[in-house]
Amino acid sequence: MRFDHETLGQRVRFASGGARESLAAEVGLIGAERVMVVAGADERELAETITADLPVVVQHDEVVMHVPTDVADRARQVAAEHRADLLVSVGGGSTTGLAKAVALTSGIPIVAVPTTYAGSEATNVWGMTESSRKTTGVDDRVLPRTVVYDASLMLSLPADMSIASGLNALAHCIDSMWAPRADPINAALAVEGIRALDEGLPAIQADPRSIDGREQALYGAYLSAVAFASAGSGLHHKICHVLGGMFDLPHAQTHAVVLPHVLAFNAPAAPRAAARIATSFGSDNAVAGLAALRERVDAPRALRDYGMPEAGIDQAARAVVEAAPADNPTPVTVENVTALLHAAWEGAEPR
Amino acid sequence: MRFDHETLGQRVRFASGGARESLAAEVGLIGAERVMVVAGADERELAETITADLPVVVQHDEVVMHVPTDVADRARQVAAEHRADLLVSVGGGSTTGLAKAVALTSGIPIVAVPTTYAGSEATNVWGMTESSRKTTGVDDRVLPRTVVYDASLMLSLPADMSIASGLNALAHCIDSMWAPRADPINAALAVEGIRALDEGLPAIQADPRSIDGREQALYGAYLSAVAFASAGSGLHHKICHVLGGMFDLPHAQTHAVVLPHVLAFNAPAAPRAAARIATSFGSDNAVAGLAALRERVDAPRALRDYGMPEAGIDQAARAVVEAAPADNPTPVTVENVTALLHAAWEGAEPR
Repeated sequence: MRFDHETLGQRVRFASGGARESLAAEVGLIGAERVMVVAGADERELAETITADLPVVVQHDEVVMHVPTDVADRARQVAAEHRADLLVSVGGGSTTGLAKAVALTSGIPIVAVPTTYAGSEATNVWGMTESSRKTTGVDDRVLPRTVVYDASLMLSLPADMSIASGLNALAHCIDSMWAPRADPINAALAVEGIRALDEGLPAIQADPRSIDGREQALYGAYLSAVAFASAGSGLHHKICHVLGGMFDLPHAQTHAVVLPHVLAFNAPAAPRAAARIATSFGSDNAVAGLAALRERVDAPRALRDYGMPEAGIDQAARAVVEAAPADNPTPVTVENVTALLHAAWEGAEPR
Repeated sequence: MRFDHETLGQRVRFASGGARESLAAEVGLIGAERVMVVAGADERELAETITADLPVVVQHDEVVMHVPTDVADRARQVAAEHRADLLVSVGGGSTTGLAKAVALTSGIPIVAVPTTYAGSEATNVWGMTESSRKTTGVDDRVLPRTVVYDASLMLSLPADMSIASGLNALAHCIDSMWAPRADPINAALAVEGIRALDEGLPAIQADPRSIDGREQALYGAYLSAVAFASAGSGLHHKICHVLGGMFDLPHAQTHAVVLPHVLAFNAPAAPRAAARIATSFGSDNAVAGLAALRERVDAPRALRDYGMPEAGIDQAARAVVEAAPADNPTPVTVENVTALLHAAWEGAEPR
C-alpha cells in the first residue's frame, strides 16, 4: 500500500428543490457582497430565479463550448469592472469552465450550481481553447469553494441525454479503478458512485420526472468527478479521447458505447477491482452487472451509429496503443485494441 | 437526499517504511526552509532518523497529554524564536495536538507523521486544557497540510494496544453511520474503513510484526477519522464520553467494550446502515460480523474489568439520555440505556 492522495477541500450542499435557499445561505456564510452570475442564455431564467436573494452586481451570459480565450477575457473584464467578489455559475461544463477561467486569473471564489452531470464543478482542472487548440491545467484557485446540487434542476435534461451523461460518469468511476493514480480512496468513492448511478439511471429511464433517480445520478456523478480527478485517465478515457479527436464523435455516447468493452478487456487482469465493481452493481460479475444496467437504460450500443467509419479502426488502434497507460491491467497491443474497437464499432457483445 | 458535506483539503502519503523519503519529498514540495520538529521524548530517536534530511532548526520534545495551555505557549514561543516555517509532528494524538496548538495561533503549516491510530492528524479539531478544563474548537489552520503514514512506525505499538486503538477507530466508523451529520459520503468512507480494520486487526493479532495488518489498520484509522470528523459524535461517543468522565476509564478499551452494545441497540432501527456494516464485515449481519471480528482479536469485553462500579450505571444512564443525539435511530430511554450499560459492564452478549 503505497500511494499519495490529494483530497480537495470543498463544501457540497445536496438540496433538491432548494437551490435558492441553499445559495443564499452559502453566500451569506462566505460574506460575499458583489456577486457575478455566470449562466448561458438557456439558463438565464433559471439563474435569475435561484440567485434572486443574492447581492448580484452583474449577470454574464456569453458562454461558449470549450471556453475560447477571447470569451474568457471578456468575462474577466466584466468581473473586474464590476468588482465582483464571488462568481456564481449556473449551468453545465462550459459554464463552470468559464467561471474557472475568471477565477484562474483573479482568484475570485466560485459557488457552482450544476445543471448537468458533467462533474467539472468538483475538480481543480481548467481548460481553454485558442484557434481550436485546447490548453488545460490544474490550479486550486479554480476549484469551486462550494457546489450546490439541486436535482430538480436536472429535470429539464432529456432522459436519453441524462442516461448518456450518467454512463459517462459511470465510466469515470470504473476507469478510476485502474487509472495511473488509482488508489484505495478513489476506489472507495468510485464504487459508491457506481452504486448510486446503478440505482439512479434506471429510475430516470422509468420516470424522467423522478427526483429520486436524478438525485442518485447527481450524487454518483459528483463522486465520479472526485474519483476521476484524483485517479487520472485510464485506458477507457484514452480510447475515448482518441476516438473523439479523430472522428468528432459525441462525447457522452462515445463513453457509453466504449465502457463495457474496456471493462471486459481489463476485468480478468484486475480481479479485485472487478469484484468490487460487481458488488456495486449488485451482481457477482462486473461485466454482467454493467450489461444488466445497460439493458435497463437502453444504452447506446455501437460507434457506427454515431458516425465512426469502420476504416478508421486501424488508425485509432495504433493511436490508442501510443496513448494507453503503461500499467493498464491487461497489456495493450494493436491486436487486442483493434478487436476491442471493432466490437465497439459494430455493437458486439463485450469480450 | 439533503445534506451539507465539508471535505477537508489534505494530502496523505501512504509509504510503509518510507517516512524519511516521503517527508523529504513533501518538505521540498512545500518549500519549507526552517522546520520545527515536534516529538515527545519517547519518539525523539525515531523523529531524528526520519527528519534527518530536513532543514530542521529546532527539535521540541515537551509533549504532555491533553495539551495544557502553558505547554502550548512554550511551544509557540519556540516556534517564534526559531522563525519556523513548517511544523513536523512525529507521534500520537498529544503530539499532533501540540503542533495544532502552535498552528492555531501562528498559521504555520503542519506535516504530521502519526505513530498511533488516534486520527487527530486528519481533522481540523484542536483541543487544549487549563486547570483540567478542556477547550476544543474547529479551525482549518490546524488541519495538517499533509500526513505521512508509515505503517512500519506502528510496529512498536504493542498488539493489545493496537487492537484496542483499532477498535476505537472502528467505533468512529460505525458511529458515523448515524451520527448527527451522517451523510452518504461519510458512510462510503466509513464502510471502507470498517473493511480495512476488519482485515488489518486480525492480521496484527496473528502476527504483530505484520506490515500488511498495520497498513490496513492505519488506512482504516485514517478513514475513520475523516468520517467521524465530518459526521460528529453519535450515541456511541456520547456514552463513552460520559463513562470516561465519570469513572476515569481507559479511552480505547472503553470504546472497544461499548461498541457492540451500541451496534446491537441501533441496528434494528437503522437497517440500511446495518446492512452496509454487515457487508463490510463480509457477513450478512452487522452484529454477528462485529462479534466475529471481536472473537478473532480477543477484544476487551467488560467495563468492570477496567474499574467501572456497577453502582455507577444508574447515574451514567441518566447522563447518557441527556447527551444522546435527538435523532438516534433507536429512541433512547433511561430503561434501554441502563440495560445497555449493564450488559457492557458485565460483558454480556450485546442484544
